[in-house]
Amino acid sequence: MKIAVLPGDGIGTEIVAEAVKVLQALDLKFELETALVGGAAYEAHGHPLPDSTLKLAQQADAVLFGAVGDWKYDKLDRPLRPEQAILGLRKHLGLFANFRPAICYPELVGASTLKPEVISGLDILIIRELTGDIYFGQPRGRRTAVDGHFPGADEAFDTMRYSKPEVERIAHVAFQAARKRNKKVTSVDKANVLETFQFWKDVVTEVHAQYPDVELEHMYVDNAAMQLVRAPKKFDVVVTGNMFGDILSDEASMLTGSIGMLPSASLNAKNQGLYEPSHGSAPDIAGKGVANPLATILSAAMMLRFSLNQPEAAERIETAVKAVLAQGLRTPDIHSDGTTKVGTADMGAAVVKAL
Amino acid sequence: MKIAVLPGDGIGTEIVAEAVKVLQALDLKFELETALVGGAAYEAHGHPLPDSTLKLAQQADAVLFGAVGDWKYDKLDRPLRPEQAILGLRKHLGLFANFRPAICYPELVGASTLKPEVISGLDILIIRELTGDIYFGQPRGRRTAVDGHFPGADEAFDTMRYSKPEVERIAHVAFQAARKRNKKVTSVDKANVLETFQFWKDVVTEVHAQYPDVELEHMYVDNAAMQLVRAPKKFDVVVTGNMFGDILSDEASMLTGSIGMLPSASLNAKNQGLYEPSHGSAPDIAGKGVANPLATILSAAMMLRFSLNQPEAAERIETAVKAVLAQGLRTPDIHSDGTTKVGTADMGAAVVKAL
Ligand SMILES: CC(C)[C@H](C(=O)O)[C@@H](O)C(=O)O
Ligand SMILES: CC(C)[C@H](C(=O)O)[C@@H](O)C(=O)O
Repeated sequence: MKIAVLPGDGIGTEIVAEAVKVLQALDLKFELETALVGGAAYEAHGHPLPDSTLKLAQQADAVLFGAVGDWKYDKLDRPLRPEQAILGLRKHLGLFANFRPAICYPELVGASTLKPEVISGLDILIIRELTGDIYFGQPRGRRTAVDGHFPGADEAFDTMRYSKPEVERIAHVAFQAARKRNKKVTSVDKANVLETFQFWKDVVTEVHAQYPDVELEHMYVDNAAMQLVRAPKKFDVVVTGNMFGDILSDEASMLTGSIGMLPSASLNAKNQGLYEPSHGSAPDIAGKGVANPLATILSAAMMLRFSLNQPEAAERIETAVKAVLAQGLRTPDIHSDGTTKVGTADMGAAVVKAL
Repeated sequence: MKIAVLPGDGIGTEIVAEAVKVLQALDLKFELETALVGGAAYEAHGHPLPDSTLKLAQQADAVLFGAVGDWKYDKLDRPLRPEQAILGLRKHLGLFANFRPAICYPELVGASTLKPEVISGLDILIIRELTGDIYFGQPRGRRTAVDGHFPGADEAFDTMRYSKPEVERIAHVAFQAARKRNKKVTSVDKANVLETFQFWKDVVTEVHAQYPDVELEHMYVDNAAMQLVRAPKKFDVVVTGNMFGDILSDEASMLTGSIGMLPSASLNAKNQGLYEPSHGSAPDIAGKGVANPLATILSAAMMLRFSLNQPEAAERIETAVKAVLAQGLRTPDIHSDGTTKVGTADMGAAVVKAL
């Protein structure tokens, strides 16, 4: 089992180090190979996703990814910015299915800005299509407008698109995930305005015929953004496109108040996957040893389950994480009165001990 | 002063009736003319925005709009569905600037799913561009994919676009609005992925040079969706495109817990405007006399201020609405223990009395 370890920038190196310790504490044989990505790779090789890093990722069974980005790269040309590494990995590895659980841990209910009764017990799964939509659609660029409100003016444009097989495969992923959960899928679209999402809705409805045991509901994206705030527990599996999924999955993770706890997985058709915390590189706290490694550790658990076929090991990690929370250990992002504040390394060590 | 009154569908007729009573109770001379729109217009004339309704709206100084839509029209071809009336009015009247305040009334803090300390005192203004972006961009439709992941497959597509003058004019609107408030504008984009929104960001930055007294911050849309949940009071004016604005303004209004209280205004370059509640047609409670008319009544106040140049009358209405809240009157959507539950007509009558 070969794992490409790509720590990236900011807190990435610190949190990935702890996840690696946890993996190494399991009685499993992994080949772990580390490479630079993001800003760190740009500094060393002049590109956020060097060929060597991409090749390593392609040859591995799974990628354990930290985070990329720092304000200091904001002025670079877009193709050289750290986040292009993520987009490149998604594209070249064909990671079309992004799993973003939004779970509210009982011990952390108080960390949410929402009232406890609204979020306690929250357990929803956002499935975001990750290689299509307006993220990659061509043509895109700048030009002189030939029609519209101001013909002759400078304009910029992008193309949103989805093909039938792209929607079909992500719909299958969502229905199959719902089967293992509460058997409800909410497909989020904007069919009242967009051709792309009328098509999306039609195709999801068609695929649904193969899953009569799963309930399908359609919801407009604006309404979904509202219902996540109003009654998030009404959702089970949410499936949507790349752009809407970007927005809604971040909104959903913030509802829990503890984004430092939330893992994510991005899979391709061969179950190769990229695993990363839902949060970013947090350059403001990088190097201080205070970042929460649990989202990355839980991402490693997802990796064991989805790409490495080690469900027992995945569960061991998840149980260990619950145990350290029960022990009252908290990094600063989830700390509250009556709990014990610990740093990144101590939290990692506690998980290893609890294994 | 000519006002086109377009009640529409569902609770639209009930809530607009109350707003009209409030307008008539002012000592002002209006010419009010009512017309069908949405599903009601489709039933009568076979089109959700008949020519006669459009002409009336174009000739009026302002449009007082209720709401459109009902599940029973879901099966109609898209061009005949009720919401096309809204899109048509925006387009034909050139209503490019949408104002969506998200305000948390002190008496209604408890109605929010967010903790009181997070939202009490909330007063933010979302300014959404309303006639551009992927809502109207051409080309759009269905075709056979020639490239992408599945060449040869059926696909659907849309075009996102913004021209420079479109972004400039909405940026001016935002900076000018911020000047009258807390002098901070957050421009929401997705410049890390979209050409359109890198351009948006560049143009907003350029326009900002004319407003050195206003602070400008740029934020990615996914982060904005999170920050609205985490710390909504950090925002003052938020300006963004049509699609992101659709999502974020609905999310923001739901934060307050009392979307039944929130008005909106959509203005063109001549200050003609369409005024409507932020909520929808709520077919489930239509005809029951329980809908909250306050968002529509407050929309009428915005109309007096923005399009009819009657700021004192606008303030009288807003003061009257605060008074009925202070009296403890509540429609069911905002009712809580210790307050008095009233219906649509009683609430309207109470506002008239409080004038
Ligand atoms: C960094 C950015 C390109 C990326 C995205 O928009 O997909 C990020 O927001 C995410 O959700 O992983
Ligand atoms: C009905 C629909 C077309 C409309 C929109 O998306 O603009 C609505 O959601 C709104 O925000 O007014």
